[in-house]
Amino acid sequence: MTIFDESYDPRFEREALINFCRDVFVHYGLERDDATLSGRVLVAADARGIPSHGVARLARYVAGLETGAIVADAVPEVMHETPISIALDARGAMGVPVSELAMKSVLDKARTGGAGFATVRDSNHFGIAAWYAMQALEHDMIGIAMTNTAALGVPTDGTRCMFGTNPIAFAAPADKEHAFVLDMATTAVPRGKIEVYARRGKPLPEGWAADARGRHASDAPSLLDSMNRYAGGGLHPLGGAGTMFGGHKGYGLAVMVDILCGALAGHAFGQHVRDNAEAAGRVGHFFAAFRIDMFRPAAEFRRDMDQLLNDLRNCPPAEDRERVYYAGLKEIEAEEAAARDGVIIEEAVAAKLNDIGTRVGVALPPAIGAK
Amino acid sequence: MTIFDESYDPRFEREALINFCRDVFVHYGLERDDATLSGRVLVAADARGIPSHGVARLARYVAGLETGAIVADAVPEVMHETPISIALDARGAMGVPVSELAMKSVLDKARTGGAGFATVRDSNHFGIAAWYAMQALEHDMIGIAMTNTAALGVPTDGTRCMFGTNPIAFAAPADKEHAFVLDMATTAVPRGKIEVYARRGKPLPEGWAADARGRHASDAPSLLDSMNRYAGGGLHPLGGAGTMFGGHKGYGLAVMVDILCGALAGHAFGQHVRDNAEAAGRVGHFFAAFRIDMFRPAAEFRRDMDQLLNDLRNCPPAEDRERVYYAGLKEIEAEEAAARDGVIIEEAVAAKLNDIGTRVGVALPPAIGAK
Repeated sequence: MTIFDESYDPRFEREALINFCRDVFVHYGLERDDATLSGRVLVAADARGIPSHGVARLARYVAGLETGAIVADAVPEVMHETPISIALDARGAMGVPVSELAMKSVLDKARTGGAGFATVRDSNHFGIAAWYAMQALEHDMIGIAMTNTAALGVPTDGTRCMFGTNPIAFAAPADKEHAFVLDMATTAVPRGKIEVYARRGKPLPEGWAADARGRHASDAPSLLDSMNRYAGGGLHPLGGAGTMFGGHKGYGLAVMVDILCGALAGHAFGQHVRDNAEAAGRVGHFFAAFRIDMFRPAAEFRRDMDQLLNDLRNCPPAEDRERVYYAGLKEIEAEEAAARDGVIIEEAVAAKLNDIGTRVGVALPPAIGAK
Repeated sequence: MTIFDESYDPRFEREALINFCRDVFVHYGLERDDATLSGRVLVAADARGIPSHGVARLARYVAGLETGAIVADAVPEVMHETPISIALDARGAMGVPVSELAMKSVLDKARTGGAGFATVRDSNHFGIAAWYAMQALEHDMIGIAMTNTAALGVPTDGTRCMFGTNPIAFAAPADKEHAFVLDMATTAVPRGKIEVYARRGKPLPEGWAADARGRHASDAPSLLDSMNRYAGGGLHPLGGAGTMFGGHKGYGLAVMVDILCGALAGHAFGQHVRDNAEAAGRVGHFFAAFRIDMFRPAAEFRRDMDQLLNDLRNCPPAEDRERVYYAGLKEIEAEEAAARDGVIIEEAVAAKLNDIGTRVGVALPPAIGAK
């Protein structure tokens, strides 16, 4: 086992990190199983190389539990149900367990009925969308998961935040190849990218964000300030400013997610989803799955998926690139590395976890190789 | 009624143009109803301001019917069916009628079962994807339509065409507002845009296309030449080159469409879909619809849709823009203008229609106001 020197970000055993999160969540009143699952989803993001959605968010979950934005003992309510659908009201519950419940119901319904759908209203951050979509894979189903989020994006030719980063996850199984797992925000970049540029004092590239007058926002700190005051400006949708590079398409996809997770779920949508003291950042979700053998034998589909994905992986790369990936491949390779070497947690994040642990009396596990 | 001078593109009565297309298709052996419908879908594209998918394509349909790429008397076969799904083999049929059949079945199934899905394999160009998705609207359903197309797009960091422009259409009804109707290719731009720049001798903007070595393709004619010879280079996915502006997301969406329309439908996918003498450009489609009242009363949903869309429409525009649109709004306004003033057909396209008509003995209707 490698002994890391101080310049390395620490690595942790995956299960130890999950147990740490579990114990923190239990301290805040979550049922033990829900707490474990919530930890599992956070740590999965880190293991898959998506630290923006990993344990770095524990502080925000804890803040939510402390203010009551996340209701630790909420009991979700079934608003409407059919043989292939369920509409849930999370009543402010922790996002992960109620989403797991919804996706399990979707899969059960799809097993007997061919397809399953679920909406969840009045929920909270559910971690990585791929977590839910991927649950369809082992059942030879195609899985879909979406959520709306606090408004951060401006419409094409607009100047005010009217939709969130509204991710779409889509998972389809293969046979020998790794599954195709798409998990993408529908804005060009996440807010976190703007924050990184603000910290580094770098001008923003054209196509990421608009200022309050709808022009290219190059100054990250003033953009963030304006966004925080709801004074205008925000992230461009996927495709950037205007229509020249397809910004109207990303805008359309973001609104599509809002229609399914907001209007269809009976939750707030658009500019009305805000993450602040008054609004608590409650969000809505949409889940779906359907059986591949409604169309053709699953084994045939998986064989074709192998060819499709293998073709993509073997596409000759650009002269300055080594490889061509397909959606989900980088993440599964990161997960394999994490299983071998431990889950990398940025040093600053590990320090914050330690602070949370100290406050609630839960010890952060030692980093792998730490003395 | 305006008398247009020669600098104006001619305008036609919508129904007269449909009847012209119908008579041409009937000449090539289509059943009269199928011929009318195919004309209706082509002309709808022109009326909605999407001439790339309008009667300008009649020549390509005619060529397909002449070579047998489109089989005029094909009888689609049901490969598999469940209460909520149908898998069709078009057997080379005209794309529009078999797609209409598939979408009708989807809506019938959704009416009784809550949701409906259809795949179609071995089909041909089906016109605008929105045509099918929009059929869900009057039933208080959400509608979805997709198709794969001949490979024109390069993966992120890749150099060869591995997927088509693979459009996604998504339609959701509102009450007083016009419906939300998204219909978007998943590449940054269509091939037609490259052709326009080639004709004008203009360099291509960065983010539209890669050359055979994976660098920015600025020279449109040499790119088209290389693409035609399958020698490398192609359109970037939505989000452009690399990952900086989200090109990997557009790439993921394009592959998602290919999975549903190719691998799931049991049709060819990726680089294997080619539009040339050997391969005939056959494609696969995917359709879905589901009832809004599986989740909440449709009237409540439509009321929320009104607010969502009204909010977007009233977003303060950028200082150099007049309005903010939502998906489908420009198209419905174009359709209203076409109902008032006639359907605009570019002069060069009208001349080609006239040639086709002359060849098969069908008179092109006179332009509105023509002497």
